[in-house]
Amino acid sequence: MQYSTKPQVVVIGGGFAGMACVRALRKSNVDIKFVDRRNFHLFQPLLYQVASGGLSPANIAAPLRSIFRKQKNVQVLLGTVEGFDTSSQKVVLEDGSELPYDYLLVATGSTHHYFGRDAEWEPLAPGLKTIEDATKIRRRVLSAFEAAERTEDAALRAALLTFVIVGGGPTGVEMAGSICELARQTMKNDFRAIDPASARVVLIENSKLVLDRYHVSLSEAAARDLRSMGAELWNETRLTEMYPDHVVVSQGGVPKRLDTHTVIWAAGVKASPLGKKLAESLQAPELLDRGGRVKVDSQCAVLGHSNVFVAGDLAAFDLGAEKTLPGVAPVAMQQGAFVGSLIAKALKGNRPAEPFKYWDKGNMATIGRSHAVVESGKIRLTGKLAWLAWLFIHVLYLARFENRVLVMFQWFWNYITRNRTARLITGKEESVAP
Amino acid sequence: MQYSTKPQVVVIGGGFAGMACVRALRKSNVDIKFVDRRNFHLFQPLLYQVASGGLSPANIAAPLRSIFRKQKNVQVLLGTVEGFDTSSQKVVLEDGSELPYDYLLVATGSTHHYFGRDAEWEPLAPGLKTIEDATKIRRRVLSAFEAAERTEDAALRAALLTFVIVGGGPTGVEMAGSICELARQTMKNDFRAIDPASARVVLIENSKLVLDRYHVSLSEAAARDLRSMGAELWNETRLTEMYPDHVVVSQGGVPKRLDTHTVIWAAGVKASPLGKKLAESLQAPELLDRGGRVKVDSQCAVLGHSNVFVAGDLAAFDLGAEKTLPGVAPVAMQQGAFVGSLIAKALKGNRPAEPFKYWDKGNMATIGRSHAVVESGKIRLTGKLAWLAWLFIHVLYLARFENRVLVMFQWFWNYITRNRTARLITGKEESVAP
Repeated sequence: MQYSTKPQVVVIGGGFAGMACVRALRKSNVDIKFVDRRNFHLFQPLLYQVASGGLSPANIAAPLRSIFRKQKNVQVLLGTVEGFDTSSQKVVLEDGSELPYDYLLVATGSTHHYFGRDAEWEPLAPGLKTIEDATKIRRRVLSAFEAAERTEDAALRAALLTFVIVGGGPTGVEMAGSICELARQTMKNDFRAIDPASARVVLIENSKLVLDRYHVSLSEAAARDLRSMGAELWNETRLTEMYPDHVVVSQGGVPKRLDTHTVIWAAGVKASPLGKKLAESLQAPELLDRGGRVKVDSQCAVLGHSNVFVAGDLAAFDLGAEKTLPGVAPVAMQQGAFVGSLIAKALKGNRPAEPFKYWDKGNMATIGRSHAVVESGKIRLTGKLAWLAWLFIHVLYLARFENRVLVMFQWFWNYITRNRTARLITGKEESVAP
Repeated sequence: MQYSTKPQVVVIGGGFAGMACVRALRKSNVDIKFVDRRNFHLFQPLLYQVASGGLSPANIAAPLRSIFRKQKNVQVLLGTVEGFDTSSQKVVLEDGSELPYDYLLVATGSTHHYFGRDAEWEPLAPGLKTIEDATKIRRRVLSAFEAAERTEDAALRAALLTFVIVGGGPTGVEMAGSICELARQTMKNDFRAIDPASARVVLIENSKLVLDRYHVSLSEAAARDLRSMGAELWNETRLTEMYPDHVVVSQGGVPKRLDTHTVIWAAGVKASPLGKKLAESLQAPELLDRGGRVKVDSQCAVLGHSNVFVAGDLAAFDLGAEKTLPGVAPVAMQQGAFVGSLIAKALKGNRPAEPFKYWDKGNMATIGRSHAVVESGKIRLTGKLAWLAWLFIHVLYLARFENRVLVMFQWFWNYITRNRTARLITGKEESVAP
């Protein structure tokens, strides 16, 4: 690594927050070290499309190096952060090497959280955070159909053709919609012994409604769309046990068993463990909230450390009344850009005093091939128009131009053919027989 | 699985031979069971493009089910063949289930062969036969550049930036060309501490020439092209030892050490182990040739068993003078189609007596972005015209239309931008520090 006499900025995490921060520093006379464990930025909102065979991993990921090739003040480093030495202002990497910083942004996001049963449940029910998660889900879903085609045991076939999604937020809704489509449209004529349209897609949700953060009219529209696509919505239902061949849920205290071999986790997330390491180095465990997020001040700085910032899903940004900003992409992007521009101004000696303000442009989720729900201010859309809005905004935000065009093309193709071209069972082979 | 009174045809292996055979039977009144361990047909000639980040796996693979969705007489089964019971005419799958056959085609191709040192060398030098091989090579090549960017040890950096390809056939030549391009063009501006163009790409070949089965003028053109792209050709060189951080070669009996962390195997192949199992079941070990291939008669039937066929890389088709047909895609396609049409005629009671005849349309290999060598009969092309011919033929042969268009688009894009969009380090993470 190269050292210089310029101010050093270290940005950890190549997600929406980190990218926005680095970009905001593009004109600054600094040395930025941009560290991530992976060599690419991942457009997470479309991961469910990879999990259901609609898109390839490379369609929604772009190498960080190539995104920032022209921004000469940033050096991308593929590495794992071991910890922090905040007293001497250094980040420690996995090989013991150190990155000194004048300003630090930690934006490593969140990971899955299985309500304290991580060890038992994680192997059975993959979540949807990484490319590997997505290809694992794709493999399991497709393998279940394959095994169903081969078995002659009717009960086993029914269990193999039952897909359970835990969590009725946007990810769960999108996942349920796309498995319905896969079974009822894409694979319609592909099998001989089974009818893939007989597959059951069961969405389990604690609360009364799916998308329960949205306006109730949108939640209801989403539920209607999902049901019309063939999904079963089990609301007010709590998952209590999970096994390789079945789950047990509780509905109003009554236990109920459901035979399934494929469970997808879209329920809980917890903060990246780097939050805890940062708090430890600062000797301030009180900085962590219950979910392991780092409490930040109105400028996204760690309380009491004006040159150390946390943004995105890892940050607990207080809104008062025990509320914090949600862990969604727009918050991460806006916080990252805010921190970058604040550092840029501070470097010039005029650090502003204004707080970060979140501009809430709204929420959206898609349900299958041509339905979505969108809310923005007082505007609420459902159905095809919402889907077009969703499509437009997602394509717009894709990190790089060639991906945008490729994804557009692939979507257009999938749309007119109802096909999914990326239906590959790849990776470590699991037994196809259950 | 469904049984019927129709004649049963079992085809094992979803490569070029198996696909062509099943297709040739499309109008026959039979039940075909088409068995493969993977759920997709893989267009192997373009695997090197996945290994070098130019294409995504889904661009060169198509689900077998979706290819044959309209051919109602075929049932695709995802499964692993455990063995054969040829006395009762059955194929045995991994779960003990059996597939009875009246006609059988075994076309499971070939795998890597490390000259008897498989256990030592395979983990160090992946070959290029599967999607997982390709993403492993991509991961190792890209990770080596990443580690080089981080190290401050000049000798280590040089070793990390040395890429060794063993074998100067078409795969080795294509792999060497695309790594040169990746380093010198695609990643030109991506790094800050290293110059990726300083990477050494060393192609090790036993014989005097690369592409030594081609006409000498084409071999020489390929060598010229490769050298102009920055590759080093070590001809008349034999690999003798391989370690995680270096290899040892022998040049005219003189040993020479080369420090490298990335070795790609493009040298030897051996027959799929199903050939041996078939010979065992037939109690005819003499059916296997030295490479484990199954000797077939002039109709691709196993000698003495007129309803059991072997085609493609697994077949040893005798040309006399101790020569056999080469293990290339056109041979597999033509043999598969021949066997399929022979079975179709035999089912109607008029099995023809004509032998299989290979129509040699020629050979081609590409060397990077706009060079190739093509020979067909007396026609020999090099340079850009050959590359266009190569491009045209490969796009033409891609199994499904949407893939063709996507690949065309992606190539066109890569061509004008000199970029590669699929440069992702995915899969099981290996240590980035050496």
